[in-house]
Amino acid sequence: MTELLNILLPAIETELQKQVSRLNAPRTHIFHEMLTYHMGWTGAGAGPEAAGKRIRPLLVLLTTAAAGFKSENQAGPGWEKALPAAAAVELIHNFSLVHDDIEDNSEKRRGRPTLWTKWGLAQATNAGDGLFVLANLAILDLIDNYSAEIVVQVSSILQTTCLDLTRGQFLDISYEKRDDLGVEDYWPMISGKTAALLSGCCALGAVLGGADQAGIDAYRSFGHYLGLAFQVQDDILGIWGNEAITGKSAASDLIEGKKSIPVLVGISKNGRFAERWSKGSIKPEEVEELAKLLASEGAYTYTHELSKQMTDMAINNLREADPQGEAGDTLMNLADKLIRRQA
Amino acid sequence: MTELLNILLPAIETELQKQVSRLNAPRTHIFHEMLTYHMGWTGAGAGPEAAGKRIRPLLVLLTTAAAGFKSENQAGPGWEKALPAAAAVELIHNFSLVHDDIEDNSEKRRGRPTLWTKWGLAQATNAGDGLFVLANLAILDLIDNYSAEIVVQVSSILQTTCLDLTRGQFLDISYEKRDDLGVEDYWPMISGKTAALLSGCCALGAVLGGADQAGIDAYRSFGHYLGLAFQVQDDILGIWGNEAITGKSAASDLIEGKKSIPVLVGISKNGRFAERWSKGSIKPEEVEELAKLLASEGAYTYTHELSKQMTDMAINNLREADPQGEAGDTLMNLADKLIRRQA
Repeated sequence: MTELLNILLPAIETELQKQVSRLNAPRTHIFHEMLTYHMGWTGAGAGPEAAGKRIRPLLVLLTTAAAGFKSENQAGPGWEKALPAAAAVELIHNFSLVHDDIEDNSEKRRGRPTLWTKWGLAQATNAGDGLFVLANLAILDLIDNYSAEIVVQVSSILQTTCLDLTRGQFLDISYEKRDDLGVEDYWPMISGKTAALLSGCCALGAVLGGADQAGIDAYRSFGHYLGLAFQVQDDILGIWGNEAITGKSAASDLIEGKKSIPVLVGISKNGRFAERWSKGSIKPEEVEELAKLLASEGAYTYTHELSKQMTDMAINNLREADPQGEAGDTLMNLADKLIRRQA
Repeated sequence: MTELLNILLPAIETELQKQVSRLNAPRTHIFHEMLTYHMGWTGAGAGPEAAGKRIRPLLVLLTTAAAGFKSENQAGPGWEKALPAAAAVELIHNFSLVHDDIEDNSEKRRGRPTLWTKWGLAQATNAGDGLFVLANLAILDLIDNYSAEIVVQVSSILQTTCLDLTRGQFLDISYEKRDDLGVEDYWPMISGKTAALLSGCCALGAVLGGADQAGIDAYRSFGHYLGLAFQVQDDILGIWGNEAITGKSAASDLIEGKKSIPVLVGISKNGRFAERWSKGSIKPEEVEELAKLLASEGAYTYTHELSKQMTDMAINNLREADPQGEAGDTLMNLADKLIRRQA
């Protein structure tokens, strides 16, 4: 971990705890406890593993700092001023996780029982709403450090991002029941579910760093392609990942029947994989053979090539944005680590 | 219906449809359809009954107009400029209804199947989130008509209101399992669930109408007490209402075991009502007798007196705000109708 990340990560946690503490009041202690549990701070298994990697707030702060060095409006990197925005995107991410877990009927999240399994469906749905509200309040806290025009601009970026998130989630849920999906259906779904928020993080970081419109656009595109590359890589790991590294059953995506990009490619080939897929759920003992079959029909090469393309697009856009200073280097490293990860 | 309401109500529907149409895109037609169904515009049983009374957006526009006549910043009543805010509060209200119906396991809303019974829990949860996002985007549309400072101020009022809503809902859900509740537990719950949004509507209408701080505070308090009076009246109708007027089983609140204010008063008396209540769910054939018993122990008089107090507070605050013109008269009439309704 670079020196800068050692400074940013604790600052993010402090800001998040401050934002969530709005609910730390006499009658809503349990409401507050639900959120501190979900954020990974309290309860059994609390700690960095339970909290997640805080990728999104890091993207905001690194982008703010990397753009800020160039801007004439900034004395220095100025990431401290952007902390409420960093908290906002992480709260948005976690709001969507709480509701996704309900919608997907998932019992575990980062190795711990999900909110709805611990507190019931009703309280968990409401707690997710609470996280969304806290995000909306956090972004407005920027008014202490920025002009009202900037606050309106970044609020607009954040909410447009959220609309994309709900669009992506709508598609994801509706795809579960569809058998007529092609590769072309994949992109609108992951653009919403994964790429929109990463893209939004970079765009609002760029605005807060004082970037010009070309800079904002370049950072936004960087985040978009970073998100796509990340998701494609996730799909590869979900089928051909090394279990020892990923810590989850290597081919769990096949067992879960997830319509990831390699599966959609396999279906489009109309070969032996497509034939087996059409016959219903896949058993654990079939998985190794089926993953090999899918690769032999060209899905691995195709998906790997896609991942490379998206990665190149991300890196090119980041170079175009021309991030400066230690923040710029850290941003480049973080992107590289996210895209090339093996777990 | 006054002439002004005849102008405002269609304008509200047009603005709402415009805001919701953000989701009217090739891949999200069904998402859009879910929302137009819930809003009462499409599907079986569509129409004014299914849409609801649009009380909240009316409060925004009437307050904007009634305050605007006094303000030096306004050439006229100027309610047209506040339409995006009117849409925002109605979208917030409907987001909370969609999630409440899931959390309460309610199968009907305004006489029609609820969203989750028609499209399933996962899509309905996400559709509720979508309404929330649309509200957040709607309020930002005010930037076309107001300064960025005003947009940040009203966004802050809206989100603070939403936090109160989730607090109230948290209490409501947690109260279901509690047997140790007193009258003092009632107010924080309905302050969040009912009064917060009405109060927020009036506060942001006042800001948009250009009221000074004293005016904003008076309108905000008017909305708060209007909400409390409305809820207390609702509780009275839920037990002693005339079925022919309310259209629902007069004492359904008793059957549902709802901890409304008359019930909490009855429990606190520790008399025969409390004894029966402690023995578990109430059967339809017991209801008439039990409602009479509750009244004989003083709960009707007590609650009716509360309703009168809250109403007086609402009216006094509205007089203090000194609403002007036809909008002012309409606001007074609307409040009167809401508080004194028999259904």
